[in-house]
Amino acid sequence: MSSKTKRFILPEDEIPEQWYNIQAEMVNKPMPLLHPATHKPLKAEDLYPIFNEACSDQELNQTDAWIPIPEEVRDMYKYYRSTPLVRAYGLEKALDTPAHIYFKNESVSPVGSHKLNSAIAQAYYCKQEGITNVTTETGAGQWGAAMSYAAKVFGLDLAVYMVKVSYQQKPYRRSIMQTFGAQVTASPSMSTRAGKDILTADPNCSGSLGCAISEAIELAQATPHCKYVLGSVLSHVSLHQTVIGLEAEKQMAMAGEYPDMVIACFGGGSNFGGVSFPFLRHKIDGTHTDTRFIAAEPSSCPKLTHGKFEYDFGDESGYTPLMPMYTLGHNFKPANIHAGGLRYHGAGTIVSQLLKDGLMEAADIPQLESFQAATLFAQAEGIIPAPESSHAIAATIREALKCKTEGKSKVILFNLSGHGLIDMTAYDMYLSGDLQNYTLTDEEIAKYLKDVDVLQ
Amino acid sequence: MSSKTKRFILPEDEIPEQWYNIQAEMVNKPMPLLHPATHKPLKAEDLYPIFNEACSDQELNQTDAWIPIPEEVRDMYKYYRSTPLVRAYGLEKALDTPAHIYFKNESVSPVGSHKLNSAIAQAYYCKQEGITNVTTETGAGQWGAAMSYAAKVFGLDLAVYMVKVSYQQKPYRRSIMQTFGAQVTASPSMSTRAGKDILTADPNCSGSLGCAISEAIELAQATPHCKYVLGSVLSHVSLHQTVIGLEAEKQMAMAGEYPDMVIACFGGGSNFGGVSFPFLRHKIDGTHTDTRFIAAEPSSCPKLTHGKFEYDFGDESGYTPLMPMYTLGHNFKPANIHAGGLRYHGAGTIVSQLLKDGLMEAADIPQLESFQAATLFAQAEGIIPAPESSHAIAATIREALKCKTEGKSKVILFNLSGHGLIDMTAYDMYLSGDLQNYTLTDEEIAKYLKDVDVLQ
Repeated sequence: MSSKTKRFILPEDEIPEQWYNIQAEMVNKPMPLLHPATHKPLKAEDLYPIFNEACSDQELNQTDAWIPIPEEVRDMYKYYRSTPLVRAYGLEKALDTPAHIYFKNESVSPVGSHKLNSAIAQAYYCKQEGITNVTTETGAGQWGAAMSYAAKVFGLDLAVYMVKVSYQQKPYRRSIMQTFGAQVTASPSMSTRAGKDILTADPNCSGSLGCAISEAIELAQATPHCKYVLGSVLSHVSLHQTVIGLEAEKQMAMAGEYPDMVIACFGGGSNFGGVSFPFLRHKIDGTHTDTRFIAAEPSSCPKLTHGKFEYDFGDESGYTPLMPMYTLGHNFKPANIHAGGLRYHGAGTIVSQLLKDGLMEAADIPQLESFQAATLFAQAEGIIPAPESSHAIAATIREALKCKTEGKSKVILFNLSGHGLIDMTAYDMYLSGDLQNYTLTDEEIAKYLKDVDVLQ
Repeated sequence: MSSKTKRFILPEDEIPEQWYNIQAEMVNKPMPLLHPATHKPLKAEDLYPIFNEACSDQELNQTDAWIPIPEEVRDMYKYYRSTPLVRAYGLEKALDTPAHIYFKNESVSPVGSHKLNSAIAQAYYCKQEGITNVTTETGAGQWGAAMSYAAKVFGLDLAVYMVKVSYQQKPYRRSIMQTFGAQVTASPSMSTRAGKDILTADPNCSGSLGCAISEAIELAQATPHCKYVLGSVLSHVSLHQTVIGLEAEKQMAMAGEYPDMVIACFGGGSNFGGVSFPFLRHKIDGTHTDTRFIAAEPSSCPKLTHGKFEYDFGDESGYTPLMPMYTLGHNFKPANIHAGGLRYHGAGTIVSQLLKDGLMEAADIPQLESFQAATLFAQAEGIIPAPESSHAIAATIREALKCKTEGKSKVILFNLSGHGLIDMTAYDMYLSGDLQNYTLTDEEIAKYLKDVDVLQ
């Protein structure tokens, strides 16, 4: 313990008024999205049938580095932002490390995760454009919970396809979405052609984000005044999440430090992009060239560390545009790990380009290491972390222990993207020794990667 | 929505340095605690065999209005305090009320409730006095979770007796306590004489706080270097919780308002006392004589609205001192409502005296009304409230609707003591129409009250 400041919170008038669009400042821009049928580069208008127009425009905007946050969105942010930046003295003590560890605590958002930052924005834009119904997918349910509340705030009707394994593992998240007034269906379901096809081929299919996305898009297209909203992967979602890193930058300045490492867990990339892009801009502009950016992904779904950079679909049925991404193939079947939000086959286009260009790195974390890290963090800091966020904690611990070995007092910032209070079944299994690792062999990965290039 | 300030947060150096001891300023002090065997007034030393000495001294302190918060306790508070004071614009809009509704959001504490405020203090004092082991009871598990983390921080071994019905209704809270490293037993259990006696009489007994307290005290007395810690009822617990009201007082000043009503849910009284005593001192000193203080209790356990003011035991087996309290009798069997933290037969001595003297009032809330209020609040503010806290929300809604009828723009402050993310089973039952009210008839209450006076 220390009598020094533990938490850094911004005054309300310091909450960012603009999101940061890293695409505008990247030297090598992400390659274009391609139309799934024609394979021609997409224009924003091509996305309008699926997404609201504002987000479609943001998706392809490679020109404007700063995008104003609408007043109504900022107004909603003020109910829970800024989230605290916390110096993790407890964890430092438990590890006996000279590293200075900070975490941005997004778990204190009303719905328990960072997902609300983009949910509010997407619901707002839909409402503005006269949309009355929205559909979406959710893995562990963090995005679904956030979107359910945001839809309620802006008076939209929401249908959520929840990945079946999470629907079963985390029934409380379904209840949360229903309490907010959303309609929730386990995916794959018989309510869509995509779901029927998948269930016909495999009646016991436990689902994937890729499959739930297909179902949600299909329902949106079959429903009047309805659009689809997505919780990660796409560039406009990462854009909305940069409010995290922009706040953290100011808060690190309050603490008088600048991170040597920025770490976040990685599913589709919006959480990682949200905390890291604002710091990455100083790597791009040459003011902080030494900062390392580490994406922590599960060993069971290792697209960044073991995937291939190719054009691939974002969903299982091939309804989305083709995206240039690190991927394990859109038919990849992730193991039933408890970090449901990280069970996705591909990475967003911005992050994929950054990784290709060596501006960031990735670490793959076995499930047991993530829960060991989670339990240590819980006992040291009092917060039960989400299984997803626990991957970032595990990567942080690896680096903090390296600092100890090397006697170096580096500054580590990680994003605690959400709490794990709905995931206690997984903790129970970990404590009783019933959890296992799912690590893919090189042969298994090679088998998946063989069919990745959908352009051939 | 409004562009006005939503949240009020204190700078770290404004976090209170002293707790407020209302006993020192009450005109009619609480009557003395009596020894359970001799019925003689207790001295602090008489409590030392059960409680740590610092808390025993605080319990009987009717002299000092301000008690310094130890530096180490304040240091831990800084990880999550001040908690935000939030203007509930969403709820006001949903109710279309001219009332100004504020809530103090204790749900953002790491463990999800206000209980940590006293858990840290009690664990600290135990550690200071060379105690190595502690025991406690918990109802819904909010106190147990808080105490588990606090014990871990101060290096104490903790055994928790959790009321059996909650152990079954809320398995995630057991998991949380175990993740923090505590040992958890469902109560009544066969590990104590008290538990054995109760199970012998009723093998299907679903437990009560009174029974769990008996078991925890018995285990503490049978274990070397071990003390018992309690999560509510006693005056020193309410003392620690006054950090809530002291912060709220400053935060209401930031908002430029002073509450016309202060509302909190009521189990043993520490949550209610915590938020209200600092404001009550201005009723006592004559600067704000019109403020109303409303304790919201469940209709199924209505000691304040339907109980009797008598000397009674704090636990089922009669191990505790005799306390002058509003009570339904220490053998009262509360219905299995989901607000497990409110299933307690008696009220703390301070609150009982204040109620007797007309300085506060009470409202009894049926279970269904509490869940209806909870769902409305969740959809309006994005936070799933604890079933306990939902009683305060229901009482707030009653008053806000009165304001609407009367066209009066009163200022209401309530304490959101915790979130309900571990209580989603109850929400599921509410949404599917499977929850019911448990309201006692006058005959049932009269039957319980007949045997209340243990001094006779």
